[in-house]
Amino acid sequence: MTVAMHPGELRTAAPVPVANRRADVTRWIAGLHDELTSFFGRLDRGGTFTEDRWERPGGGGGVARVMTDGVTFEKAGINRSAVMGVLPPAAAHRLGGRGAATGSTHFFATGVSLVVHPRSPMVPTVHLNVRYFELTDEAGTITDCWFGGGTDLTPFYPHEEDARTFHVALRDMCERHHRGFYPAFKRWCDEYFVNTHRDNEARGVGGIFFDHLRADADPFGLDFDSTRAFVTDVARALRQAYEPIVDRRRNEAFGDAEREFQLVRRGRYVEFNLVHDRGTTFGLQTNARVESVLMSLPPLAMWQYAPRYSPHSFEARLQQMLEPRDWVGDVTGA
Amino acid sequence: MTVAMHPGELRTAAPVPVANRRADVTRWIAGLHDELTSFFGRLDRGGTFTEDRWERPGGGGGVARVMTDGVTFEKAGINRSAVMGVLPPAAAHRLGGRGAATGSTHFFATGVSLVVHPRSPMVPTVHLNVRYFELTDEAGTITDCWFGGGTDLTPFYPHEEDARTFHVALRDMCERHHRGFYPAFKRWCDEYFVNTHRDNEARGVGGIFFDHLRADADPFGLDFDSTRAFVTDVARALRQAYEPIVDRRRNEAFGDAEREFQLVRRGRYVEFNLVHDRGTTFGLQTNARVESVLMSLPPLAMWQYAPRYSPHSFEARLQQMLEPRDWVGDVTGA
Repeated sequence: MTVAMHPGELRTAAPVPVANRRADVTRWIAGLHDELTSFFGRLDRGGTFTEDRWERPGGGGGVARVMTDGVTFEKAGINRSAVMGVLPPAAAHRLGGRGAATGSTHFFATGVSLVVHPRSPMVPTVHLNVRYFELTDEAGTITDCWFGGGTDLTPFYPHEEDARTFHVALRDMCERHHRGFYPAFKRWCDEYFVNTHRDNEARGVGGIFFDHLRADADPFGLDFDSTRAFVTDVARALRQAYEPIVDRRRNEAFGDAEREFQLVRRGRYVEFNLVHDRGTTFGLQTNARVESVLMSLPPLAMWQYAPRYSPHSFEARLQQMLEPRDWVGDVTGA
Repeated sequence: MTVAMHPGELRTAAPVPVANRRADVTRWIAGLHDELTSFFGRLDRGGTFTEDRWERPGGGGGVARVMTDGVTFEKAGINRSAVMGVLPPAAAHRLGGRGAATGSTHFFATGVSLVVHPRSPMVPTVHLNVRYFELTDEAGTITDCWFGGGTDLTPFYPHEEDARTFHVALRDMCERHHRGFYPAFKRWCDEYFVNTHRDNEARGVGGIFFDHLRADADPFGLDFDSTRAFVTDVARALRQAYEPIVDRRRNEAFGDAEREFQLVRRGRYVEFNLVHDRGTTFGLQTNARVESVLMSLPPLAMWQYAPRYSPHSFEARLQQMLEPRDWVGDVTGA
């Protein structure tokens, strides 16, 4: 079967049958899942992942890998999935795919996502997600396909150096692919990870976030292979963006005040994920596998009533760090 | 100013001006708030509440009372508020008021709500809420008004006796007002406090829940004073429904397994409140005072990945207790 392709995809090799494309991106995501599992296994320095394979009644399934009580990470979850089925028109519309306009409701999605919750409040939490989404019509022709993803950093103790390390690494990685990526995706991230119900407090210091990055290019003009190469580099970016931070902070001393504040900030993480995060709320509404959807929640979280912090406390300094800012302004690119 | 009243209200005394009615119900709620604060202060046997008064920019305000690190309660929050303003038509429609049909968008609401999180996993969590809601037209005429409320019990360790104590006390209280209340409001509670995203797992063993209980009576036929007398008894029901349970369980021994399971179940409580609870989600969407809206969240909660329990464990027995059932079937009324 030959499938119709978008103009951008015509720039790549010959048209790819749907089944081959799906098998290909599924293998690609599984490879990134393995890489990320190895990476965090090494980074933890002692903990191991247990694996849980699951199937989705509507089609497809996934592989959840969870580390509990690691050396560095109190909880680390890395999940991959490849699912397919039929979307109600409203759901297709919410996804923002062109398929909604053309009547396509068959979908295929595969991706990998991770959230790690370090033991030490001196080590920030990190989240990363990359995904591929495809809409096809009844005949199996691809009507729209795109990539999405991103990574963001959530510190507890206010080390400005860590936010710079994270953003400079992401900026450098993005610039190897397109000069427009970092500024656009950094802003997108700042606008997305926000607890609007807490006076627009950011979840963390941001990073990059993108969606609907199409192989035929609006507005960046990359072909399928180049787009996927960028997304692959996003999935690999934590070696430069996160590992140096963990190594810098893993042995720093901390006390009860820092631990308690970490648990309070984790409460904000829970609030964002359950109230605002599109992937989570979509998963909960559509009866996706709940344990995979909520794998991102912290092992332990705390809620205090209206805590107040003195202006020069580390807690107040973190609040200031959460105001979106230019973290790479005077740092020369690699 | 004389206001138009519903037929049911005409059965009571002479028509009441809006301002007087509002002042009257506000005093009534403040009185119940004080009673509940005293009750939980005594029940804790040592802890004290701190009070926090707040104002709402759009009109009105509230009084939050919080106990942190009490003797019996790790956290107890009792909040009252009296707020007024203008509702967008869609919001008025969601409320289910007749005002939506008649174009009324001015509202007044006052209520008291509480959630207490005991230290010991042998002592269940309890939630209680009573409220009065009023819609008026531009001229200040009441176009609709109703009461709502309820109370529900969330045990951690499976003591069936406690669920019976709770439900029998509520049944007896309800029957002093109307034979139809307990069966209707018990079912409403079972249907409301459900984590639909967790395969319809109940938050706890239920209790009673009601809304739109109108002074002119559909379908129970009570007048304003009788309706309010019932709602007052709901607010006072915990003396019979909850105090005996606390006294029975407060000195029972428990270990790490029970404490850990308590924290996991509190995670479910967080999920219900942030994902499903109408009051909470309405508050978060409308930028109500976030610390008051989220006062119900537990001091500490835990998420584990896909925990499994052996069939005869206490955890598995609690799961069985969460299936809605008739808790008063063979217990004779008072």
